[in-house]
This record gives sequence, structure tokens and C-alpha cells, in this order.
Amino acid sequence: MYDPKPEDRFTCGLWTIGAVGRDPFGVPTREPLTARQICEIVGEVGGYGVNFHDDDLIPIASSRSERAQLVKDFKTALADNGVVCPMATTNLFTDPAFKDGAFTSNDPKVRAYARHKVLRTIDDGVELGAKVIVFWGGREGTETDASKDPVGAVKRTRDAINYFCEYVIDQGYDLKIALEPKPNEPRGDIYFPTVGSMLGFIATLDHSEMVGVNPEVAHEHMAGLNFTHAVAAAWDAGKLFHIDLNDQLFGRYDQDFRFGAAMIKQAFHLVKLLEDVGYSNNKSFDAHAYRTSDAKDVKEFARGCIRTYLILREKARQFNADPEIQALLAEINVDDGSQTEWLGAYNRDSAQRLKNTDFDRVGIGARGLPYERLDQLTIELLLGVR
Amino acid sequence: MYDPKPEDRFTCGLWTIGAVGRDPFGVPTREPLTARQICEIVGEVGGYGVNFHDDDLIPIASSRSERAQLVKDFKTALADNGVVCPMATTNLFTDPAFKDGAFTSNDPKVRAYARHKVLRTIDDGVELGAKVIVFWGGREGTETDASKDPVGAVKRTRDAINYFCEYVIDQGYDLKIALEPKPNEPRGDIYFPTVGSMLGFIATLDHSEMVGVNPEVAHEHMAGLNFTHAVAAAWDAGKLFHIDLNDQLFGRYDQDFRFGAAMIKQAFHLVKLLEDVGYSNNKSFDAHAYRTSDAKDVKEFARGCIRTYLILREKARQFNADPEIQALLAEINVDDGSQTEWLGAYNRDSAQRLKNTDFDRVGIGARGLPYERLDQLTIELLLGVR
Amino acid sequence: MYDPKPEDRFTCGLWTIGAVGRDPFGVPTREPLTARQICEIVGEVGGYGVNFHDDDLIPIASSRSERAQLVKDFKTALADNGVVCPMATTNLFTDPAFKDGAFTSNDPKVRAYARHKVLRTIDDGVELGAKVIVFWGGREGTETDASKDPVGAVKRTRDAINYFCEYVIDQGYDLKIALEPKPNEPRGDIYFPTVGSMLGFIATLDHSEMVGVNPEVAHEHMAGLNFTHAVAAAWDAGKLFHIDLNDQLFGRYDQDFRFGAAMIKQAFHLVKLLEDVGYSNNKSFDAHAYRTSDAKDVKEFARGCIRTYLILREKARQFNADPEIQALLAEINVDDGSQTEWLGAYNRDSAQRLKNTDFDRVGIGARGLPYERLDQLTIELLLGVR
Amino acid sequence: MYDPKPEDRFTCGLWTIGAVGRDPFGVPTREPLTARQICEIVGEVGGYGVNFHDDDLIPIASSRSERAQLVKDFKTALADNGVVCPMATTNLFTDPAFKDGAFTSNDPKVRAYARHKVLRTIDDGVELGAKVIVFWGGREGTETDASKDPVGAVKRTRDAINYFCEYVIDQGYDLKIALEPKPNEPRGDIYFPTVGSMLGFIATLDHSEMVGVNPEVAHEHMAGLNFTHAVAAAWDAGKLFHIDLNDQLFGRYDQDFRFGAAMIKQAFHLVKLLEDVGYSNNKSFDAHAYRTSDAKDVKEFARGCIRTYLILREKARQFNADPEIQALLAEINVDDGSQTEWLGAYNRDSAQRLKNTDFDRVGIGARGLPYERLDQLTIELLLGVR
Repeated sequence: MYDPKPEDRFTCGLWTIGAVGRDPFGVPTREPLTARQICEIVGEVGGYGVNFHDDDLIPIASSRSERAQLVKDFKTALADNGVVCPMATTNLFTDPAFKDGAFTSNDPKVRAYARHKVLRTIDDGVELGAKVIVFWGGREGTETDASKDPVGAVKRTRDAINYFCEYVIDQGYDLKIALEPKPNEPRGDIYFPTVGSMLGFIATLDHSEMVGVNPEVAHEHMAGLNFTHAVAAAWDAGKLFHIDLNDQLFGRYDQDFRFGAAMIKQAFHLVKLLEDVGYSNNKSFDAHAYRTSDAKDVKEFARGCIRTYLILREKARQFNADPEIQALLAEINVDDGSQTEWLGAYNRDSAQRLKNTDFDRVGIGARGLPYERLDQLTIELLLGVR
Repeated sequence: MYDPKPEDRFTCGLWTIGAVGRDPFGVPTREPLTARQICEIVGEVGGYGVNFHDDDLIPIASSRSERAQLVKDFKTALADNGVVCPMATTNLFTDPAFKDGAFTSNDPKVRAYARHKVLRTIDDGVELGAKVIVFWGGREGTETDASKDPVGAVKRTRDAINYFCEYVIDQGYDLKIALEPKPNEPRGDIYFPTVGSMLGFIATLDHSEMVGVNPEVAHEHMAGLNFTHAVAAAWDAGKLFHIDLNDQLFGRYDQDFRFGAAMIKQAFHLVKLLEDVGYSNNKSFDAHAYRTSDAKDVKEFARGCIRTYLILREKARQFNADPEIQALLAEINVDDGSQTEWLGAYNRDSAQRLKNTDFDRVGIGARGLPYERLDQLTIELLLGVR
Repeated sequence: MYDPKPEDRFTCGLWTIGAVGRDPFGVPTREPLTARQICEIVGEVGGYGVNFHDDDLIPIASSRSERAQLVKDFKTALADNGVVCPMATTNLFTDPAFKDGAFTSNDPKVRAYARHKVLRTIDDGVELGAKVIVFWGGREGTETDASKDPVGAVKRTRDAINYFCEYVIDQGYDLKIALEPKPNEPRGDIYFPTVGSMLGFIATLDHSEMVGVNPEVAHEHMAGLNFTHAVAAAWDAGKLFHIDLNDQLFGRYDQDFRFGAAMIKQAFHLVKLLEDVGYSNNKSFDAHAYRTSDAKDVKEFARGCIRTYLILREKARQFNADPEIQALLAEINVDDGSQTEWLGAYNRDSAQRLKNTDFDRVGIGARGLPYERLDQLTIELLLGVR
Repeated sequence: MYDPKPEDRFTCGLWTIGAVGRDPFGVPTREPLTARQICEIVGEVGGYGVNFHDDDLIPIASSRSERAQLVKDFKTALADNGVVCPMATTNLFTDPAFKDGAFTSNDPKVRAYARHKVLRTIDDGVELGAKVIVFWGGREGTETDASKDPVGAVKRTRDAINYFCEYVIDQGYDLKIALEPKPNEPRGDIYFPTVGSMLGFIATLDHSEMVGVNPEVAHEHMAGLNFTHAVAAAWDAGKLFHIDLNDQLFGRYDQDFRFGAAMIKQAFHLVKLLEDVGYSNNKSFDAHAYRTSDAKDVKEFARGCIRTYLILREKARQFNADPEIQALLAEINVDDGSQTEWLGAYNRDSAQRLKNTDFDRVGIGARGLPYERLDQLTIELLLGVR
């Protein structure tokens, strides 16, 4: 029941399973894995694909021929393990060149170099079969707002994304763009900090139809926001092009825990939403094993992400089939049709009547809503005692 | 230098100066003020206008004739004190009818009653001269996501806002709509929690040109987000229709402190942005005096909001005129024009050349940025020692 | 299996089941319940006792004879419903007199009145059989640190608690004192914000043996802290005199949700700790039903608190009996005895040898710890799929 | 006016000025500095001393003779630059050996190795003249509470600190111990997360008189707590043995900004407290320059920490001398002596009279407190416009 299938579209990045356990206060605890080794693990645990940052695959100082060879080797490694490369992304944050941002840097040389690096990633990504390129602007922000014009930063980002859209169109690539927000870390504040911010920004782009979001649980939790609501807004806007699944507590540094490891109920509502609306694209586990883990435990981590998703998917099905829960929901959502006139599209006469209608405010307010009961049933379903 | 002028557009709501000091753990500590008394105070401290929630002005159970009289009396009180009514808003959160939301309630009767209440506020607001109606959906959310469909909630909100846009157009009103986000409190989670969320949502409306945002410092700070960045994004999108100024610490309950009282540097950057871009609309102090204040101290609170804004405005001018700061900014933003080719609009040939250009990555990354110096100068300017 | 027994010691306050659904943005949605009605509900759902704030039971303006009658009636109501009064507490936050604190107020009259009010609560509490009096200093704080000396505030609090200890001793009462921390709300910042702060403060008291803590899940979660760790520290110090169970998300306003409703995994570890160490005192559900609930749903809320605790207790037993989990823990905690010399009490010769010992740092660091596996098993146990 | 003197006791660690700009998402941006170079900078900017982690000074794999030479060289470098070594601390977090903690590790070998490492640091620290050793338990925590017994973790920490106290006593060293709390990062949750937690823990030690706290602004701000209150509690308990000054926003990753760079008002209240109570020990700037800084800007960072402290100290003096502020404070703190009887030490007769006294609750509550005025004056003083 909890075995993944390719159509479940579970993916992860080279940097996730490949994380070596370095953090701001500690050196690595694990040996690096090659891209091939990562493909083997993903294949073994039943994943669908492996995403890459350009620099994960191709060390930043590589020559063109080295680059070509590394891409070719990765293609072979993917094929050998029955997995694909569904997503590419450009590392615009590790190198000192990007210390003050890439697209929003005050230095034109940095902005130009960033575009150069993205164009190459797009080419490599398309060659490897990626259908989406993700942009996470980890350095696009400030520690002091004296240093950058925040309106100018928005404009520079827009110019860059518009440029890449034109490139993709011009090349005839079958590629979408997904923007990934994060509120802070490694910068004091990052521009476009939340899923909503990105949705707002996308609406100002020249080719907004090509551009969506890549929401990540941990990033939205850093701001203490309800991730399910953010994903719902993205879905409603037709902009859920990719999703990064992991977990962490609110108001913390970027923890990137195993999916479902920190906030179980919230993970359940997310899975239920994705399944209920029929999201069928990639579900990328953008997490990493604890720094305490060894290679074997890293594999347990990868399996755990998948299993927890599948367990929660089964819980969502139970929720939708539970007679008591469904009866409560029917009661909560009862509609006798009496208000239909007021809730349709605007109509002048109806609006005048609506203004003059007397509502039984007190009666309406007196209606009790059995949400404690409903929530308790949800908790018991999650705990497996229903 | 720190005396307000009408063109400064400082406004506040009846509920701000009129707050009686009730909180979840305490009964009122101050006598209620009448709308007339509030107009007097606003006039006395040099404010431009007084905003109202329908229920502040017109008790919810008022008859039509009472309603008309109250509106008329308010108009007189405004005129007598040389202030205007620039903004109206509908209370869709106090009454038990709205306990599970207004536009997003599962109960069609509540949704219809909410529309009824808004239409009346629009009429009253227009009669009083308001040019903008604000929507703060304080109850549009959940404590348990089992209780509401989050995608449906977005759709219901859109239906409502579209309806009101049609009404405003149909009536020929000169009125814009400003949506005010908040992440939580009084609901566990509120839909459209941040300025960005609202910008994203607005883009999906039928008449998005009529609809903007009303960002509030405290609400964005509850999520620990950089408010200046949020306002910059709203300004860039042409959506800064109104602004609520107050203050509070990150990650806290809704504190609604006096403007500039909690996070001085952040307030400075906000004022600087508003002045630099030329925002000339209402600046509403959506704050309230401490519960410990008496009537006299409430007036000090109101004066303090204004004075701090004006002091910070003067600081912004100093910043823009400070030779050392401006020299640093010039150094930071230096552009020798060598990258212009790569940073303009997309061009196929240029893009190919860009891909094949070798960048001096290491040299670019080696450039130091004097941001500690710049920030220290900013701090010293704020502390008045430059 | 999930039916409570008196020895489970589940209690709640009059103000929890009796909450009427008022919040900072809304009027009540439920009718008030009498103390008797609350005793009936607690008895019906299987609770052990009912705690009271003096003002819940005895309106603040009551005469002495009214006071006596109300205490007597409560005693009868308790007895009639097979429940006891295990805890009393003084409301030092609702009345305007306490708007700037009680023990830490700058006004000597307020400090004196607060002592008066506490002495009376102690007497009433003892008469009703309470074995512990809780102090929650909801107003002991500031919005502006210009207004109070923070060292003086500590001293004033100590003077007050020392005084009450003397009173209890002098009266020969069998009563302990439990201090309840909270970081903020309704004050901007509250002194002694965390469980740890209270433990530190208690160590400075004249009769620290009589004084312990009353940790509350929601309060520690407001500061984003691990509640289980806080309770463990209190237990270790012999200071866990009472506990308030509820739930809420990190970094939020005081949500006071049903126990286990927000952060399931964290609630599990708490229950496991309480059961593992053998905590046998009161477990008070200091929560309230959603504002959307009616009287029936309030009862569901009360039942839900208890059921979730009991379900998690059963999970804790499963965890302790699960062979795979226990085998992992045995592996993790393996000790071959070779280090015993270094880990015992201090000894001069041994310390010198320890300094000169060569440790195989690299070998020690290479050992992998199967914590992802262990955590995944824990999650699966919680989800009921083991 | 803002030039530091040695008696100001401004210090910093080798790791602060020496930070190379590495973070979880980026490689270093600056060349490493030698200990000698750091001593030069500290001397140049007017600092008093340089603290060290053992591993900063002595690479972890050094031989005994290398170790001795490095200590000797450091002593010379200090002397050459007119600075001292006031504090030592052991790095128990970087090496993989400590990935699951040092004193609280489940592995006895790790716990023994940690003791070994501390004993050596104590010896080196004393040789270098340090009067305090700081313990920051960066890895003493968990990502999953299934992995460690939280009560056992407290006990293990106590055993270790007791051991070190015995060692210091036995060696006749003139050395105190200061414990430094942090809520999380790099561990999911760290034990003893706040200043209060440490104060509580210290009270359980065998030689608590030797052990105090080393509070750090950034660490307490991570939990959204008022740092000034925490320091006041430590001072009151006689436990403020050291202090780490830096800055950062609430609820964020560990930002370690320049002192006063993020929350100006809060930094002012801290400085005012330290000056008002007469704290005369080390003030350590445990911060680092932005990753964007070059060597020159690092120096500006160091100067800025000192200047901002001194500017705020001058502001504190102004506050204490400002007639209007002092008049307000006198009014706020007025005491007519009428309550003295109730507020002294416990006395049986007086307590009985107190219980029977009628207080004018309503009158007491009606008194207004001019805290908005006071806070506004404070803000204006900070902004330099008084």
C-alpha cells in the first residue's frame, strides 16, 4: 500500500540525498556521493526523478568538454537506474560572485554573469529532459535596506525573468519556469518572501503564463504561515508548477526535515489538498538527512519521505470515506438554496433588494459549528484509532 | 519642522483613538469616545481624516433613520473639525454571525448577509466622501483545515470582490478597493496572510485595476517579514492604495503599537521608501494607545505617531543629502556600461554571445561591499549623531 | 481503553469550559455557564477536578456574605458531580487596577491590593480543598521598558512570593505554590517569560522548597520552544507542581487549542515524558473551545482533550514495547564500560590521565546514528500503521 | 566621546573578526586572518581583549608541541597589541565527534572526549590569563526527541559542569564558568534554550557559586524574548558573569549582526540596564561582519559595534538627566507611604488586617499612566531630536 509508483512523481535533488552534513557550526559528517550513486539510491527507493543544480553536477570551474561529459554521464546514470531528470535549477548563491544577489545585485557584472549561468542551465536542463526550471533567489535580498532600492530589486528580477522567458520561447523549448520563495536565510531578508509574493510578482511578467511557483513547506513555515493555504492559492491561480516537500517548525532556521517529521497534521492537510485537487506533477523532497545520519540512515530518510506521503494519502482517502466525518461536513455545508439570489453574479435589481433585505443576524450567529468534533475525528483518524 | 500639514494625509480610524483598552484578558480601562470627540482630537493633533468601520459609527442594530442621522452627524463633526472621511470599511468580524468568516463562511446566509453589509458601507462611505473601501477579512480563515476547502475559500472571496467591483462601477462611484492581509488572529490562520498573497489574489479578479492593497506594519511583522519590501512590491505593481502605519515586534500577537515605537530602523526604511517613491495617499495610523493610557495619554499617542513619521521623514532627507552616505552608494552602484549589452531586452544573437562569454567569476566575487560602513552611518544618522 | 479514571487527574478551570467565545475582535458567541454547570460537564466527561480564579467564582465586587455563599455553593456543586477543587488562582489581570501589573506595579496601592486579593484566594482555595495555588502574572510586564526597572520588577515579585510563602506556613496550610510563565500577551513582554526563567527565579526565594512551576504548552510554544525539554528541566529540579495542557502553533498569539490539536508529535513526546517519569499530579486542560463552537461542541472539546491524552499515553506504551524501536535505542545507547573512569565524579589523578588520553576523534565521529530510522518509526507508530 | 577605553572592557572572539563569510549556502568570501592579525585589529579599534575557542587557536589535530607554541605565540600577539585574553571556550560542536552533542551525547566515548577537551581548554585559558570559561552547548539537543532522554540530558550536563567545577577548585584556578544558552540551530532544539533555563539549571549544581550565565542578544531574540529582561534576571541572581553583544531580529536564524544594527530601541534599554546597575565585566561582541564585507569593512564592523554601544551609553546618561523624562518617572513612581505596612515582610497581624482592608479598586484602576508620552520621549531622545 505504501510502495511508490513512477506516476506518484516523487523526486529529489542531487543536493538532498547528497548532503554531507555541513552546517554553519560543523564540518561534513558524511562522504560526498556521486551523481550516479544518488541516481542509484533514488531508483532503489522508488523515486521518479533527480533534479540538479548546475554546480552539483558540473563543478563551477569546469571546461566545456568536461561539462559535456558530465551531462552525458548523468544521462546514462539516470537511464541505468530507471529515473528521469524532471527539473533543473541554477546555483546563484554559493559562489562569492553572488554574495549580494544575482538578478538584484547592484553590480552589473554580477547580473550579467547570472544571466549567463542561467542560459547554460536551461540548455543543460532541456538536454537532460527537464520540463521545468526552478529559480530560488537565495541571495536576492539584504542585511541592510540602506544598500539596495527595494523597488529596483523587483524591476531587476522582472527584467531577468522576462529575458529567460523570451529565451525559452525563442529556442522553442518545452520548459516552464517555477519561482521559489523564501523569507530569509542566508540573507537577512529575501525579496519575494512567500508564495503569495511570488504570485503577485508573476502577474507583472510579460509571459506570466509560462511562470508559476515552487512552494516549499519549510520556507513558508519559517514565516509561520499555513502552507496548505499558500498551495491552495497557487493552485487556484493555475500556478502550482512544482512543489518542494519537507518539514520544519515555525519561526526557525531552515531545518529541511524529512517530509512529515515535524508537523504531522499540517502535512496531512497538504497531502489531502494535493490529492483532492488532482495535482499530478512532481513532488520533490527538498530535504536532507540529519547531520547525525550515516549512508544507511540517509536511505532511511529517503524512504521515510515517500512512506509518510503515501500513509497520509491513504489517510486522506479514509477522511473522504469516513461516514461520520462526511456527515459532519454535509451538515456544516448545508445550503437550502434560499440565498442563491444574493450569491450569484452582480445584478443591479438584485443588489438593491439585497441592500434592503433584513437578515436574522442573531439567528445566523446562534448556529453552532461542530468544528471541535470534526477536528477531534481528524486527529483520531491521523492517530489510527478510527 | 515636525508639524503635520493636511497634505501629509495622516488619518486614523474611529477604533484607534477610540479604543477603550479591552483585551483578551482585561476589561476596558477608558471611557468610550463619541465619533465627534474623535474628530476633535484628530483635528487638534493635525490629522487629515477619520476612517470608520460601519459598526463604529452605526451600532449594528440601528434603524434606517438612526443610521441616516448618525451619518449626517458624523459629516458635521468632520466638517466642524476640518477633517475628512477618506476611507470606509465594513466590520465583518465582531458579530457572532461572522464567527466562521464572512465571504468564506460555509453558510450561504452569512455570505449573503456579508454582501448586504458591505453594500451599505459602500453607500455610506461614498456619501461621507471616502475614496477607498478597505476589506480586512479578520474571520476569513480556520482553526482546523478540516472545516473548509481552502481553494473554495479563494473562489468565494473572489466572487465577493468581483461583485463589489461591479456594484461600484454600476453606481458610478469614485471608489477604489484596498485589501488588507493578516496572517492570523483572531483566526488560527487567515487566508491571504501577507501583502504578497493579496497581490497574487488581485491578479485573478475581474476588475483588478480597481483593487489594491492596504498593507499594515503590524500584520506583516506578525509573520516576521520585512514590511518595506512588501510595500515596495505593492508600489511596483501599482497597488499601494492605502497604508496602515503602526508597529510591533516580530512573531507576536497583534500589538498595534504607536508608529515607530518598536522597530525604529525598520520604520525609517519604510518612511524613506514612501517619500522616495512619492506615495501621496493616506497614511493611516491603525494603532491604539497602551491599555495603561488615560485620555490625555491617548492624545500623546496620536501626536507621537505623527511626530515620529515626520522625524523619520526628515532623517530620510538627511540620508539622501549626506555626502558620505551618497558617496558610498555611488561606489556601490557604479556601472561602467560594459555589461549593458547583456542586461537589455532579449536578443537572440546577444544571448548566444552571452552564453559563450567568459566571466571573471573570481574577480567579480572578490569585490568588497562596504555595507557595514553604510549601515553604521545609517544607524548614526538615526541616532542623531551625524 | 481511552476512558479517563479519577487517578488520571484530568482537571480544568472554570474559565476553560466556561469560555464564552470573546476575543479581541469579537463579542461572545456562547451563553455563560454557571460554576455548577461546569462541574456537571467535568463530571460527565470523566474529569477529576475544577480549578478556579477567584473572580470566576466570586464576582470581584461581591460582599463577604455573597462570597461565603458562592464558595459554599461551589463546594456542593463539586461534591454533587464527584469532582474536587485541586487548584486555585488569583485573577490579577482583568481589572483596570492591574493594568500595569500586580506585584510589579509601580503603584504601591496596586501591589498592596494584589496581596490582599491573593490572601483571600489562598483562604478560599484551602477551604475548597486546593493543594496548589497557581500564579500567572499576566500583567507583570511592559510595553515600554522606559516605564519600569526590570531588576526592581524581579525584586518586587520575589517580595510578594516570599510573603505568601510565609502566610501559608504561618497558617499551617497544606498548600504549594506553582508559578506559570508566559512570554507576552496581554503585555508587550512579560517578566519570567519561560519555564526556565521561573526555575531560575524560584532558586532565589526564601522558601523555594514550597514553590514550583506550572508550565503551559501554549505559553512555551509562543516562544517557539520545545515544551518537553522545559518540562524535563522542571521535573529534574523537582519543581513540576502542576501542568497546563493545551496546544498551539509556534510564534502565534495565545491560541489555547484543544490538547494535541496542533502539534501531534510534540504532544506525544510530552505525554511520553510525563508517563515515563511517573508524574502523578494534576493535568489541567487550560484550553477553550473554538469561538465557533456551541454548548454541545464545547463538550466535544472537553472529551477530546482527555481522549487525545489517553490515546497518546497508549502510543507511549507501544513505543516502550516496540521491539524494533527498542533495539534501535539499545544500539544508540550502547556502553561498553570503557569510559566509566572518565565519566564518574571528579578525581585528581583520573583527571590528569584524562587530559593525557588520546581519543580516536575521527573514529568516534564516524559512527552513524540511525535517528532518521528511529524518527520514521515514531511517526509511523503515531500514525497507527505499525 | 565615543572612543573606547580599556575599562570599557570591549572584547571579541577570534571567530568574530576572523569569520570568513561561509554560511549554509555559500563558500567563504574572505581570507582567513591569523590570531595575530585579529589581535592587531582589536588593538587598533580600541578593544580590551580577544577570546578564543580552543580550535580557533590550536587546530584540533595539533601535537602537544604545536599546541604549546601556538599558545605562546598568541600570548605574544596579545601583549604586542595591548590586549588581553579574558575568556576561553571549548569548541564542542564543529567536529563530527560532537554531532549528537558533547556532554549529552548518548555515546560515552563522546562524553569522555568532551571532558578531555574542556580540561585542556581550561589549562590553556588559565595560562593565557582568562578569568572565565564559557560553555555554549551548540550540539546539546535533538532533532527527534525519540533519540534522547531529556531528563537524562539535564543530568549529564550537570555531571559535566560539576566535574569542571571540581577541577577548577582542585587546581586552585581563579576561573569562573559562564553558561550560554541558545534555543536552536544548529540542532533542531537545544537543551537550556534561554537565559532563564540556565539560571534554573545553575541552581541545581554542586558549586553554583562558581557558575553564571553568558547571555547573548541574538540567541534570546531567536526565541522572540526581551533580552533586557533576561539580563536583569541574571543580574538580580548575581549570575551575570559575561555578556555577548550582537543583534538580530526575532524568530530568525542566528544572524549575529553588528551590535545595535537591528533593534535600536531594545539595544538602548540593554545598554541602559548594564550602565545603571554598574556591570563592569567583559562586553563581548559575538557578531560577525556581513558576508559581503571585505577586510576593510570588517574593521568598520568592529568599530561600529563599539561606537554604537558608546552612543547608546551617552543616550542612557541623557535619559537619566532629562528633566521631563525624570519628572514623568517621578510621577509614575510616586509613593505616599500609605501602603508601607502591607508591603513589608510578612507579619501575622498585618496580614489579617490586609485581608480585611477595603481597597478602592475602581479609584486605583482609574489612574492614568503616561507611558505613551514617556515612550515617545524615549524615541525622540534616541532619534537625537531632544
